[in-house]
Amino acid sequence: MSKKPLILVTNDDGITAPGILTLIEVMESLGDVVVVAPDSPQSGMGHAITINNVLHLDKVSKKGDKTLQYSCSGTPADCVKIAINEVLDRRPDLCVSGVNHGSNSSINVIYSGTMSAAVEAGVEGIPAIGFSLLDYSWDADFETAKKYIKQIAKNALNNGIAEGVVLNVNIPSSENTKIKGIKVCRQARANWKEKFDKRQTPQGKDYYWLTGEFVNYDKGNDTDEHALSEGYVSVVPVQFDLTAHHYIQKLNSWQFED
Amino acid sequence: MSKKPLILVTNDDGITAPGILTLIEVMESLGDVVVVAPDSPQSGMGHAITINNVLHLDKVSKKGDKTLQYSCSGTPADCVKIAINEVLDRRPDLCVSGVNHGSNSSINVIYSGTMSAAVEAGVEGIPAIGFSLLDYSWDADFETAKKYIKQIAKNALNNGIAEGVVLNVNIPSSENTKIKGIKVCRQARANWKEKFDKRQTPQGKDYYWLTGEFVNYDKGNDTDEHALSEGYVSVVPVQFDLTAHHYIQKLNSWQFED
Repeated sequence: MSKKPLILVTNDDGITAPGILTLIEVMESLGDVVVVAPDSPQSGMGHAITINNVLHLDKVSKKGDKTLQYSCSGTPADCVKIAINEVLDRRPDLCVSGVNHGSNSSINVIYSGTMSAAVEAGVEGIPAIGFSLLDYSWDADFETAKKYIKQIAKNALNNGIAEGVVLNVNIPSSENTKIKGIKVCRQARANWKEKFDKRQTPQGKDYYWLTGEFVNYDKGNDTDEHALSEGYVSVVPVQFDLTAHHYIQKLNSWQFED
Repeated sequence: MSKKPLILVTNDDGITAPGILTLIEVMESLGDVVVVAPDSPQSGMGHAITINNVLHLDKVSKKGDKTLQYSCSGTPADCVKIAINEVLDRRPDLCVSGVNHGSNSSINVIYSGTMSAAVEAGVEGIPAIGFSLLDYSWDADFETAKKYIKQIAKNALNNGIAEGVVLNVNIPSSENTKIKGIKVCRQARANWKEKFDKRQTPQGKDYYWLTGEFVNYDKGNDTDEHALSEGYVSVVPVQFDLTAHHYIQKLNSWQFED
C-alpha cells in the first residue's frame, strides 16, 4: 500500500474537460489520484442528486494508466457519493473539484456543481476544495493556475481543513491579469440580474433562455470579488451549516398564537 | 390594484402535487396568490438552474380562476427567476415553496429543491419560506399542517424577514405525532450514510440506485431534528452567505510560498 495521500478528483464540466485534466496533473504530483467525474457537462446543477433515476459508472482508464478514472452518469454530488462508497477502497485524504471553466465566486457558489462536489465531500468529513478559473472558454490557459492550485492543495494536505468547512478557490484569468498571489476572503454580497431572452419555436410558441448580468453590491475590500479584481486568487472558507444563528433570537419574538 | 400582499407560490414536487394545493389554499387566505411551479417533479434538484436548455412557461389556470397558475419546464430556482422577471407585474411580498412531500430538515436543506426556491427568492431580496411535511406519501394528511403554515406566513408578512435570511420550516407528520407547537431551531449536524443498490441491466451491465440512511450525530436539544422528534414544527433561519467567517483567521496562517 502506498503511503502517499489519496486524492479524489471530480468536476462539473465532465471528465473530458481541459480543467479537470489540469487538476489531475497537479494532484498526481501530490499523491495517488482517482478520478470519478460526470460523463457529460453538469454546469449549474447546484447540489442536485439523482434519486429518481439509475446511475451508470464506467471505468475509462486503461490498464497501465497512472491514474484510475471513472465516468459517472450522475451529478457532481453523485460522483463523490459513488466514489466514496463504490470505487475507493479507503477514505480519500483530499477531494478536489474542477478546475471549473468559469467563476464560482460570490453567490455563484450556490449554483455551482463544482462546489457541490466539494461540499458533498465535506459533509462526508473529507477535506475538500473547489477550484474555478475566471475564463469560460474551453481552451482557457490553465498553465498559470497550476502553481496556486498546488500551493493550496498542499496546505490542505499538510494542515487539514476543519470539520464543516470546505474551500472555494477562484483564480483570475491569466489572459487579462498578472496574478499577484493568494488572498483569504469572504463571499461578496452580489447576485444575478436575470434577463429572459424570449423566442418563438418554429411552431410559434414562446420559450425562454435564462441569461443575466452579475451585479456586485459589496464594496468591502475583504471579499472574493475584490481580491479577484485586484489580481489575487481568492480562497473563501465555505460552510454547510446554513443556520443564520444571529437571527434565532429575533425569530423567538414572533407570535405564533392563532 | 389590490392592497392585499402578493404571494408567489412554488414547489419542487410539481404543480399537481397535493402539497402545493394545500399551500395555495392557505396563502389565498392571506393575500393575492400567483403560482409558478415545475411541470414535473424536481426532488433532489438542489439549487440547479437551467443554463444549457430552454425554458417553457404555460398558463394552466382558466379564465375566472381565483389564482393565476403557470407551469414551468425548469427547476424550482428557475421558477422563481422566471416568475419575478416574466410573470409578476410587481415584486411579491412573500415567496413560499412546498409543501414538500418529505423532510428537508438538517443537512437535507442543501439537496432540497423546495429550499432552493426559497433561497433564490431570498437572493432576490424577497422574504421567503420553504415548508416541508415529514411524510413522503402522495396522499399525506396536510390538513393539520395548515394552521402552522398560516401562523408562520402571517408573521413573515407582518414582521418581514431580514435580508440574507430565509426560513426552513418542517412539520411533523400527523400520522404519528400530535403537534405541540412551533420551535425556532438550528440545523442539526447529520448526514446520509449512502448505500448503492447495485443491479444489472437485462444486458448484464452493472448500474446503481442511490439509497441511504439518515444519521443524526447532533445531541443538542436546540436542533430541528430534536424539535421534530418531540412533536414540534421546526423553523430554521437559513443564510446564503456561506462564508465560514470563523475560519478566515486560521486560513490566514497557511503558507503559500512555492
